Amino acid sequence: MVKTRIGILGYGNLGRGVELACRQNDDLELVALFTRRDPASVHPLADSVTVYAADDLAAHADDVDVLVLCGGSANDLPEQTPACAQLFTVVDSFDTHANIPAHFAQVDAAAREGGQVAIISAGWDPGMFSLARLYAGCILPEGGDYTFWGRGVSQGHSDAIRRIPGVADARQYTVPVPEALEAVRSGQMPELSTRQKHTRECYVVAEEGADLAAIERAIVTMPNYFDEYDTTVTFISQEELDRDHAGIPHGGSVIRSGVTGEQGEHRHVVEYSLKLDSNPEFTGSVLAACARAAHRLAREGQTGCKTLFDIPPAYLSPRSAEDLRAHLL
Amino acid sequence: MVKTRIGILGYGNLGRGVELACRQNDDLELVALFTRRDPASVHPLADSVTVYAADDLAAHADDVDVLVLCGGSANDLPEQTPACAQLFTVVDSFDTHANIPAHFAQVDAAAREGGQVAIISAGWDPGMFSLARLYAGCILPEGGDYTFWGRGVSQGHSDAIRRIPGVADARQYTVPVPEALEAVRSGQMPELSTRQKHTRECYVVAEEGADLAAIERAIVTMPNYFDEYDTTVTFISQEELDRDHAGIPHGGSVIRSGVTGEQGEHRHVVEYSLKLDSNPEFTGSVLAACARAAHRLAREGQTGCKTLFDIPPAYLSPRSAEDLRAHLL
Repeated sequence: MVKTRIGILGYGNLGRGVELACRQNDDLELVALFTRRDPASVHPLADSVTVYAADDLAAHADDVDVLVLCGGSANDLPEQTPACAQLFTVVDSFDTHANIPAHFAQVDAAAREGGQVAIISAGWDPGMFSLARLYAGCILPEGGDYTFWGRGVSQGHSDAIRRIPGVADARQYTVPVPEALEAVRSGQMPELSTRQKHTRECYVVAEEGADLAAIERAIVTMPNYFDEYDTTVTFISQEELDRDHAGIPHGGSVIRSGVTGEQGEHRHVVEYSLKLDSNPEFTGSVLAACARAAHRLAREGQTGCKTLFDIPPAYLSPRSAEDLRAHLL
Repeated sequence: MVKTRIGILGYGNLGRGVELACRQNDDLELVALFTRRDPASVHPLADSVTVYAADDLAAHADDVDVLVLCGGSANDLPEQTPACAQLFTVVDSFDTHANIPAHFAQVDAAAREGGQVAIISAGWDPGMFSLARLYAGCILPEGGDYTFWGRGVSQGHSDAIRRIPGVADARQYTVPVPEALEAVRSGQMPELSTRQKHTRECYVVAEEGADLAAIERAIVTMPNYFDEYDTTVTFISQEELDRDHAGIPHGGSVIRSGVTGEQGEHRHVVEYSLKLDSNPEFTGSVLAACARAAHRLAREGQTGCKTLFDIPPAYLSPRSAEDLRAHLL
């Protein structure tokens, strides 16, 4: 068995998810955590993992086979991934869909310059959902794609609510509209507006004496985040929020509905769906599998930026090709 | 755009499905049909397709880029695929799971000897279901796999009923047990016996004067096919069978349920499901996408036998890597 020595840059929810995933895979050995906090304040689950300052990354290029970047897509990864890809085989979960081509170009240039492999946008969307869209589209070229998210917590929307004056804390759930899901699953290929596909549920803790009506109005009219959706706002206490909304569940469905036949008389519906108790732990598990694949690509001498679209599925697995053919094919 | 010239060997339901799929893809050009019947008796949809005798295959090795083998797994493919892989880039849908390793070895040896690429076991199970099992297993190593088939027509079980004395015609549906599906989808990871997962519905046309009780007994006690299932037998007229059971629908779900977290406290459920109006047309569409991938592998100079596990997903698509990243990732 080939062992892959893993380093993690950034030890928030996602970094912790990668750490937990490494514990489930005998061939993935977490050896180093890199943090921008004081290393003495960071405590990984296993004593065998050394914590370094992020500034010392370059000194440890030979200590890890794959560096998994667990920063945010808005502020961290656009700089971190290209910088690290010059020195390390890297994997990230860059998820700002509109900026993927630009991110790819920058990471690809850096990785080629450094003779490294980089895998970007690994996770579930982008990631597993993207694969579902790609495969189904190749099989059913005449059809339509539908992606539903939820029921699950949107961190970005929760943060947007927390920035409103008078809000102490908040949790936002994205919820697919059941009738829309059913219509798509039936193969009808409906045209659906943003409002028809998802609703948004907001659980808000207000500061004492805050103007609740003003908070609600600020939420439901917020451009880009809420104005195109049917949004419900429920004010609850901090205790209720902590008790009932502490988890980070998510999920959703990618559905492709298409036709075949002489006159398109046969309908087919392909659905890939996820129900996740922990968004960051599932995403971390995808990153871990991609780290294994990245190490294999690097051992083959490949360089440059890749996505899940470019990776033979077997490369994600610790099992041999023979084993996979005999037991999973 | 690279054009791929397709040949089809065997023009039954599956061959017809591949033919229809080629019409949906501008880059796939069906140029030749090879048949064991009298070529004059075979009429492809387009006049531009030439029909040849299967015996003349070798003379046309330069006329097609990929030969799609549409024979049966029991009797045709074990001989056809290795024989053809010496001369052609080939794709087949070999689906006898237990014999895949042996088939792979024979096809691999033949393809390497001929300097060709072969893709075997393309379809939905094996095929898309196998990919679903592989990906989900890589992400959630601590978990369980469940595959449900149906509601759909099993050709093999229908044939088995037709071989019973007194049976004129029959159609068998494999049906998942709803309670079992729900239990798995909830993340419970139940242990399920064969009987608990699927039921079998048989619609039988009896010959005049046949002993219906004897036929029913012969069906429900038939080893391997029915004895381990709860089976219902309904006798109907030939008219009813032709009217209500003419289609070849199928589908099913691959579900992986697994846990992450410090103590496995977070459950995740990954489901890939298909609802297909036409089993052979969907399978034919998978074969067509794999033919595109096979041609690309061949152009790269690769040789030997591959499965969907070995193929970068983007190779199945006619779209460029840039286009896929910008619009599907």
